Amino acid sequence: MNIKVQLGISNRHLHLTKEVYEMLFDEELTVKKELMQPGEFASDQVVTIKGPKGEMANVRILGPFRSYNQVEVSRHDARTLGVNPPVRKSGDLAGSENITVIGPKGSVDLTESCIIANRHLHMTTEDANKLNLKNDQKVKVVIPGDKSGIIDAYAKITDKASPELHLDTDDANAFLLKGDEILDIII
Amino acid sequence: MNIKVQLGISNRHLHLTKEVYEMLFDEELTVKKELMQPGEFASDQVVTIKGPKGEMANVRILGPFRSYNQVEVSRHDARTLGVNPPVRKSGDLAGSENITVIGPKGSVDLTESCIIANRHLHMTTEDANKLNLKNDQKVKVVIPGDKSGIIDAYAKITDKASPELHLDTDDANAFLLKGDEILDIII
Repeated sequence: MNIKVQLGISNRHLHLTKEVYEMLFDEELTVKKELMQPGEFASDQVVTIKGPKGEMANVRILGPFRSYNQVEVSRHDARTLGVNPPVRKSGDLAGSENITVIGPKGSVDLTESCIIANRHLHMTTEDANKLNLKNDQKVKVVIPGDKSGIIDAYAKITDKASPELHLDTDDANAFLLKGDEILDIII
Repeated sequence: MNIKVQLGISNRHLHLTKEVYEMLFDEELTVKKELMQPGEFASDQVVTIKGPKGEMANVRILGPFRSYNQVEVSRHDARTLGVNPPVRKSGDLAGSENITVIGPKGSVDLTESCIIANRHLHMTTEDANKLNLKNDQKVKVVIPGDKSGIIDAYAKITDKASPELHLDTDDANAFLLKGDEILDIII
């Protein structure tokens, strides 16, 4: 079965607990822009992330607060930082990479908090049921254009979701994607 | 049919005519390292490449001299430089991007000289004939691992060649490839 889904390109970003956020900032976390996933937002607040080889400034915190701290980078970012994060789905952090986060108030060394996000397809339980699609099931994404291919992504099924395929900036560069594309997905 | 081929990751680099080289350098082009393709080498000489938005230093010249000037960058590099090169095979430069090359002796504005190299499979005419593979024919490359897929590449058939699949650094990052892999190719 083929479906068409909006693409979203994820640049490096992080999710924080309220506790860690308050070690980094003296101000409230404020909404800069609502994201396509319901309730999720890009905040006004940015941090510097630092690894053994380098650091990257202006890395945006996404809200709301979560029950875990998670820094999502691309493989290219990982080379710059000197870290070796595994490819994981969100929240699957056991054995993942350590990284330092620096805010205006202070800095925090986060252990097992840095990953490369897996390629994932957001979908509601209701839509997934109609497609007989299970959580974590592999789907195939058709990439058109001058650097074409068919790549694997994984279903991320939640009660509240907007259908959206999340790829990272390495994928966007490798496949010449701008982020506004509607892509065919084979289930 | 499936064949196994050595992967080679191409970082940004350039090929120059002798005339342009001599506008940039006062020294001979010297061999730093032989490449896998017969007669080709990485030279000791590096330049800075510059676009409207930025520049990148230490970009290596590959030898020997060619009959055309060609600067090969990744999409990521192109964003840094502020250029918009098309995806092309080597030597197909009509309408490609302009770029400035700066050496120790001088700088040269190269018109229609900057491309993103297409994903290509080097092969000898003899080997290609055995596989009934034509020049520019599309083949499929199987990418294993945590960011898997099957991507399209194009046959580059020449009399002298070593079987090798050339991908760029964006592909390497997107697919977590190190460059030492042997990949399956479906013809």
